[in-house]
Amino acid sequence: MDLLLLSSKKRFLTIGIVAAYGLFTSCETQNKEAGTTEAAPVIEQRDLVQFVDPMIGTAKMGHTYPGATAPFGSIQLSPDTDTIPYAVQGQYNPDVYKYCAGYQYDDTTIVGFSHTHFSGTGHSDLGDFLLMPTVGELQLNPGTESDPSSGYRSTFSHDNENAEAGYYSVLLEDYNIKAELTATTRVGMHQYTFPESDQAHIILDLTSGIYNYEGKNIWTFLRVENDTLVTGYRQTNGWARTRKVYFAMSFSKPIDSYGRNELPSQVYRGFWRKFDQTENFPELAGEDLKVYFNFKTSEDEKLKVKFAISPVCTEGAIKNMQEEVPHWDFEKVKSQTQQQWNTELNKVQIEPLNQDEMINFYTAMYHAFLGPTVYMDVDGKYRGLDMNIYQAEDFVNYTSFSLWDTYRALHPLFNILQPKRNADMITSMLEHQKQSVHGMLPIWSHYANENWCMIGYHSVSVIADAIVKGNTGFDVDAALLASVQTAKVPYYDGLEYYMALGYVPEDKNGASVSKTLEYAYDDWAIAQAADALENVSVYDEFIQRSENYKNVFDSSSGFMRPKLSDGSFKKEFDPMDTHGQGFIEGNSWNYSLYVPHQPDTMIEMMGGKDAFVDRLDSLFTMELPDKYFANTEDISREGIIGNYVHGNEPSHHVVYLYNWTDAPWKSQDKIRMILKAMYKPTEDGLGGNDDFGQMSAWYIFSTLGFYPVAPGSPQYALGSPAMRNAKIQLENGKIFEVVVENQSEENVYVDKVILNGEPLRTPFINHSDIMQGGRLEFFMSGKPSKQCYK
Amino acid sequence: MDLLLLSSKKRFLTIGIVAAYGLFTSCETQNKEAGTTEAAPVIEQRDLVQFVDPMIGTAKMGHTYPGATAPFGSIQLSPDTDTIPYAVQGQYNPDVYKYCAGYQYDDTTIVGFSHTHFSGTGHSDLGDFLLMPTVGELQLNPGTESDPSSGYRSTFSHDNENAEAGYYSVLLEDYNIKAELTATTRVGMHQYTFPESDQAHIILDLTSGIYNYEGKNIWTFLRVENDTLVTGYRQTNGWARTRKVYFAMSFSKPIDSYGRNELPSQVYRGFWRKFDQTENFPELAGEDLKVYFNFKTSEDEKLKVKFAISPVCTEGAIKNMQEEVPHWDFEKVKSQTQQQWNTELNKVQIEPLNQDEMINFYTAMYHAFLGPTVYMDVDGKYRGLDMNIYQAEDFVNYTSFSLWDTYRALHPLFNILQPKRNADMITSMLEHQKQSVHGMLPIWSHYANENWCMIGYHSVSVIADAIVKGNTGFDVDAALLASVQTAKVPYYDGLEYYMALGYVPEDKNGASVSKTLEYAYDDWAIAQAADALENVSVYDEFIQRSENYKNVFDSSSGFMRPKLSDGSFKKEFDPMDTHGQGFIEGNSWNYSLYVPHQPDTMIEMMGGKDAFVDRLDSLFTMELPDKYFANTEDISREGIIGNYVHGNEPSHHVVYLYNWTDAPWKSQDKIRMILKAMYKPTEDGLGGNDDFGQMSAWYIFSTLGFYPVAPGSPQYALGSPAMRNAKIQLENGKIFEVVVENQSEENVYVDKVILNGEPLRTPFINHSDIMQGGRLEFFMSGKPSKQCYK
Repeated sequence: MDLLLLSSKKRFLTIGIVAAYGLFTSCETQNKEAGTTEAAPVIEQRDLVQFVDPMIGTAKMGHTYPGATAPFGSIQLSPDTDTIPYAVQGQYNPDVYKYCAGYQYDDTTIVGFSHTHFSGTGHSDLGDFLLMPTVGELQLNPGTESDPSSGYRSTFSHDNENAEAGYYSVLLEDYNIKAELTATTRVGMHQYTFPESDQAHIILDLTSGIYNYEGKNIWTFLRVENDTLVTGYRQTNGWARTRKVYFAMSFSKPIDSYGRNELPSQVYRGFWRKFDQTENFPELAGEDLKVYFNFKTSEDEKLKVKFAISPVCTEGAIKNMQEEVPHWDFEKVKSQTQQQWNTELNKVQIEPLNQDEMINFYTAMYHAFLGPTVYMDVDGKYRGLDMNIYQAEDFVNYTSFSLWDTYRALHPLFNILQPKRNADMITSMLEHQKQSVHGMLPIWSHYANENWCMIGYHSVSVIADAIVKGNTGFDVDAALLASVQTAKVPYYDGLEYYMALGYVPEDKNGASVSKTLEYAYDDWAIAQAADALENVSVYDEFIQRSENYKNVFDSSSGFMRPKLSDGSFKKEFDPMDTHGQGFIEGNSWNYSLYVPHQPDTMIEMMGGKDAFVDRLDSLFTMELPDKYFANTEDISREGIIGNYVHGNEPSHHVVYLYNWTDAPWKSQDKIRMILKAMYKPTEDGLGGNDDFGQMSAWYIFSTLGFYPVAPGSPQYALGSPAMRNAKIQLENGKIFEVVVENQSEENVYVDKVILNGEPLRTPFINHSDIMQGGRLEFFMSGKPSKQCYK
Repeated sequence: MDLLLLSSKKRFLTIGIVAAYGLFTSCETQNKEAGTTEAAPVIEQRDLVQFVDPMIGTAKMGHTYPGATAPFGSIQLSPDTDTIPYAVQGQYNPDVYKYCAGYQYDDTTIVGFSHTHFSGTGHSDLGDFLLMPTVGELQLNPGTESDPSSGYRSTFSHDNENAEAGYYSVLLEDYNIKAELTATTRVGMHQYTFPESDQAHIILDLTSGIYNYEGKNIWTFLRVENDTLVTGYRQTNGWARTRKVYFAMSFSKPIDSYGRNELPSQVYRGFWRKFDQTENFPELAGEDLKVYFNFKTSEDEKLKVKFAISPVCTEGAIKNMQEEVPHWDFEKVKSQTQQQWNTELNKVQIEPLNQDEMINFYTAMYHAFLGPTVYMDVDGKYRGLDMNIYQAEDFVNYTSFSLWDTYRALHPLFNILQPKRNADMITSMLEHQKQSVHGMLPIWSHYANENWCMIGYHSVSVIADAIVKGNTGFDVDAALLASVQTAKVPYYDGLEYYMALGYVPEDKNGASVSKTLEYAYDDWAIAQAADALENVSVYDEFIQRSENYKNVFDSSSGFMRPKLSDGSFKKEFDPMDTHGQGFIEGNSWNYSLYVPHQPDTMIEMMGGKDAFVDRLDSLFTMELPDKYFANTEDISREGIIGNYVHGNEPSHHVVYLYNWTDAPWKSQDKIRMILKAMYKPTEDGLGGNDDFGQMSAWYIFSTLGFYPVAPGSPQYALGSPAMRNAKIQLENGKIFEVVVENQSEENVYVDKVILNGEPLRTPFINHSDIMQGGRLEFFMSGKPSKQCYK
C-alpha cells in the first residue's frame, strides 16, 4: 500500500476515501473469486491508518496528544506546547488542566518532545524525558510562549505539522529544524533534520514534566555511557507517589561535548570536588538536572535519536532498544508501527455514511487502542506496587487503568475486539491486587502506583464482564476472590459505612450518593461473576449489596439524594448541582439514573415507564443554567445536551435506557444526535475528555448500533447504527457483520432488526450473538417506529 | 564453652585470661596426645570473644561503634547517642565529626538503635533505620541530650551497658526497658524487655541518620504488610549520591495500632484524600517519615524485632530474614554469631605479655574484621553503580572500601588471614570497575556509590599485593587491565597533569605532593602486578611512572615540596604545615618519607643512610607547635609522637624505614612505644580514627613483629614483636608460628632472628615464608643490638 508512504495525510484524505472504498468492494470480490476453503473467513486488510487524525481532541477539553505511539505502547512520544506548573508553592494552578496531554492546539510554541503521555485523562502526570533540538546559543530554560526566544522552545505552525497514527512531524521554526517522531512499543525514535551549524544541541530536560511542580522530581540520575549512549532515570512524586522511569538514549552520531545546568548549591557530594561536573563529566544526578549534548551538523543532516524506556532499570531499557529497534532506519520503524496500527484498525471495517464519519470512527478506534499501556520490558520484567521486580509469566503486563471511565464501554469493547489483551489486562490487575498492601484491585493505577483517583472499585466490573462473556484467559477464581476482597476494605472511601448502613453517609464521606450508586452496581457485577462461577455465597452476599442504590433514593423528590449517618436525607439539596451535594462529575438529574444493573426496578421506583420517559426527555431538553456548568468538571459547554452530560461518564448509558420503556425509538434519534454533536473530525471535536478511550468506545459501539449498558451482563442494548455497514473481525476467526438498510442522515429510526435471519422482538442482543459470528441487519426509517421490536 | 554465655564480659575478664591461657596449653597437650595423622595441623579453638571490647575507640577520635555485628556483616546494629546534623542550611557543622559512628562514650543519652555504621572512618554516612522502644506518651522527636524528656531518647549509664562481639545491651533508664541487640550478616535482632504498659511503642525514625541534614533523605517508603511485618526503603543523597537501602522488619507479636508523624503539606498525593493516612494506613511514603507501632506489654515481656536489610529490594530483605533467622531465639543468634567471631579471632592465637595486650589484640582483630562489608542478598543479588541489579557468580560481593587507609596494612593482613575474602573483595572491586561509567576501580566506595574520598587510586595496590603474593582467586588479567585504565583517567584529580608533567602541579590541583607521591607508589604497584603477570609493556610504562616522586623532591630543602605547572617549586613552603601546602593528612616532614617502594633511592636522595637516620630520629623527637596540630585531621593530640603522626595513615610505614639504614634497632623501641602509646584498652584508647581497621591492622602486624612497608612487594620488614608467641592458622591449613624468647616489657630490642632454624641476615621475611608455614624465632634483649641482622 503506497498510500501509507505519502508524506502528507491531509493532502490525500479526499482521494483516500475513494481508494479505500474501492478496496473494500474489491476485497469482497477478491474473496469470492479466491473461493477460499478455510473455515474462518478473514477480511482483507484495508489502508485505514490514513483515516486516523491524532489531532482530533487536541484543542479544548479533549486532552488527547498528537504524537507518535504504537498500539497500547509504553512510549507516547509527543510534543508538549507548554509546561505550566501544577502548583506553585502548594497552590493549585487551574491552567495546568489544559495540559493533561502536554499539547494544546491553540498554542504557538513547542517546548520539546517528551516520551510519556496519558490520552484524554482529566488529571495527569508523566511527560518524562523532554528532548529538544536547537541550534545557536545554548539555552537551558524553556522560555515563555510570549517570548519564545527567551528559552529553548520554538514557534511552530500547524501548516508545517503532520500527525498520523505512529508518526508526527513539525518544523521548529526558530531553529529551522524538522522534527519527526515515530515509536515502537518501548522505543521512541526521533529524526531531526538540522541546518548547518557549529552549535547544534539536543537538550534533555529532566525537570520538565506534565503536572509538574517544584519538588515533583524526587531524583534524576544520568550516565553518559559512551559517546552515543546515555542512560538514567527519573523518579517523581505526585499523582503517582513513587514513580520511576528508566531510559536509554542512543544518538546516531557521536556527541561532541556535553554538560548540565548549574545546580543549586549542594551539601556534601564528593569530598574533594575533584571534578568539574558541569562539562563532559559522565555521571550526573540531582533533583533538577538539565543536560545538553553538542554536535556539529551539515545542511540537512539527519540526526537521529532512539529513546527506550523501562519500568525496571537502565539495563532493561537498553535491551528494549536492542530488541525493538536494532537499526537506524526511521522509515522502517514508522512503516512497521503503522502496519501494526492498520492491523488493529482493520478489526472493524465500516462503510461510512460520509467522510467525516470515516475519520471519526478510525480516530476513535485509534484512541480506544492507546491504553492501558504495556508496562514491562521485552524480557517480561516489570515493577510492582511494592517496588519489587516481577517476571510476567505468560501474559503482557499493562498499566494506566483509568477504570472509573473505561469499565463502562472500553473494556467491554475489548471483550469483542481485544479479548486476549483484555484478559492480560485483568491478569495485570490481579497481579496489582497481589502486590497491593491493601489487597485491592486497581482504582486508577499507573506505573506501579495507585493514585486512588475517582470512586468505586470498577476493576470488579471489568473482571465480571470478561467472566460473564466467557473471556476467561486469566485466573477466574483468583479474580472473584480479589473482587470480594477489594469490596470489603473497610477504610476505603466510605466502604465501612456502606457495609454497615447500606449507603455512604454524606456527613462521613463526600460524593456519597455517587459512591453508593457505583458500589451497588459494582456489587451486582461481583454477583454476576459469582453466579457464572457458581459461587452461591458470594452471589447471595453481593446481589443483596447490589440493591443498596435504593437506600439513597428519596421518593418524595424522586431523586437520588445524599443521606446522613442518622438515616435522614440531607436537607439542602439541589438536583442540578454536583459538588458538595453528594455527587461527582454529574448532578442528581444525571446520577439518579445510575442503576444500570436494575433499570426495571429503577423505572418502577421512579414512577413507572411513562413517567420515566418524560424524565429522560426532560433531561435532554431542559436548560442547565451557567452557574451549574461551572461545577461540572472536565467538559466543554458543548459537552452538554440540555442537562445531559455526555462529556463526563456517569450518563453514558442513559440514552439507552429508553429500551427499558415502551419507547426505544426515543433513544435512536438522540444517539444519532449525540454522535453528531459530541464527535467532530476537528481538533476541538470532542465534547469532553476522551478519558483514555472511554468516549471513543462509546462512539464505536453507538456507531455500530449497540451498547453495553451494564457491563457484567452479556446483553447489549440496541440503538441506531450510524454507518452503512460494518464487519467485525473477531480473534476467534469469525466475522460479525452489521448491515444497515435504507440508511441516511435522516433515517435515524429503526424499523426492524433481523439477526441471522430472525427478526428481533426486543432491543437487545447477546454477546454470544456477536462472538459466534453472524449478521445483524437494521432496517432504517425517517420516522419513529413504535413497533420496531414488536 | 560456657564462658560465652556469661552475662557480663567485664565481670569475668580477669578469670577469662587465666582460663584462656590454660586452654592454650591444654590444646597443645591435647594435640600431642591425640597424635593426629592429618597433614595439616589445626589449632584448637580458644574462647577469644571474651577479650574483644567493642567499647575501645568509642570515645574521642576512635570513631568505632559498640553495637552488634557479625564478621564483615552488612548489619551494624548499634546505639546512636546523638544525631547532630552534618549541615544546617548548607553550612557544615564541625560537631558532626564526633558522630561518624553514631556513638560517643561521653554522651549520657541514647537516641535509638540504627542498623548501619562505618567503623572508625573520618567521614561518615549511614545510620539507617533507627529503632527506639519507649513507653508512655508517644513522642516522635528525638529531643535533646540536655532535656531527654523532650523527645523519645533515653538516658543511660555505662554501668548498665555491655558490649561484646556480636552482642550489645543497655538499660534505657527513662523507660525501664532493657535493650539487647545481636546480628547475623544481614539481620539485626532486637530484644526489648518492657515494663508493664498500655502504651508501649517502637518508633522507626526514617529521618534519622548519620551525617544527616535537611534534604539528605531523598525518599522513604514503607508498607505494613501485615500485623507483624513491615517493609520499605530509605533513599539518601550525601556522601553517597544515590543510596538506597531496603528493609524488612518483623515483630514477635502483632502490632496493636500504628501511625506516622504529620508530614508537611503535600502537593497532590491521592486525588480524594480518601484516607486518614496518619493512623493504621498501611502504605506510607515521603521524605520525612517517622512511624510508630503501639503494643501493650506485661511486666518483663520480651518484645523482639528482626530487621533485615537488602541492597536490592524488600523481597530480598525478606529472603535474607527467612534464611538467616528463621526463628525467634535471640540467644541462638547471639551464640552463633559469637561462634563466628571466635572462628575469625582464632586465626591468630597469641600468648600476650599482659592482659591489656590480650584485649588490645583481639579487639584489633575484631575491628580489622568489620569491613569491607558484605553487600549482597543471600541469593547473590546486589545493586551496581549504575543502579542495575547484578547476580554475584561464585563470589561474595563487598562494599565500603576505605582504600586510602586500608591498602596499607589491612588488605595485606587479609592476604594472610582472609585470602578468600580478600580475593572476593578484589572481584567486587573489579565488578565496580566494570559498572563504573568512568571505568575506574573504587577510590572510596560504599553502597553502590563512589564517594571519591581522599586521594590516589589504591585499589591497584590491593590488587598488586594479592597478585604478587599469589592470592589470585580473581581474574588477574582483568584486574591488571582495570588498574591500568584507572591510572589513566585524565579528568581524575590532577591525573592529566601528572601524566603530562610527571607530577601534579599545585596551582592546578591541591594536595599536589601527596597525590604525586601516592600516584607514583600506586604506579609501582601496577608495575609489580604486570611483572608477575609478565606483561612487559605495562611494567615498563608504570615502572617509569613510579619514579615520579623524584619530581617533587626539592633537594635544596631536602623535602618533598609542591611544584607549580611552570616547573618551579611553590615559593611559600612550610614543611610543618599541611593544608594548602600541597599535602593532606600529613605535612611534608611526614609525607616526604612516602616512597615505600624505593626506600633506598629515597634515602640516597635525602643524603644517605646516616643523614636519614638523623632525620627519622628528629621526626620522633621534635616538637609540633599547636598551630600545626589544628591543621592535622582526624586525630587526638595523643595521636602524635613528636612530629610523627600515627593517628593518620601516611606515616604508618615510617618507623620501619630504619630497616633500610644501618640502624634497624632504632625501629624496634619505637614500634613498642607506638604500640603502647597509641593502643590502650580503654574507650579513648585509640590515638586516631581506626579507619575501618587500618589502625588495627598496623597493631596486629606490629605486635606479631613484621609489617608490609610496600604492599605489592612480597617482603615484610621486621620490627619488635610485642607478644610472647603467636600461632597463625592459615586457610591453606598450615601454621606459622612466631616465638619470642626472652620477651619482656623492657626487652624491646631484637638480638637475633631465626626462621625455620636459619638465622636471618636481613630484617626482612617473605610472604611465602609465612604461607608455607613455619617458625619465626625472635631473641630479645634489653639493649640495642647493632649486629642483630649481621
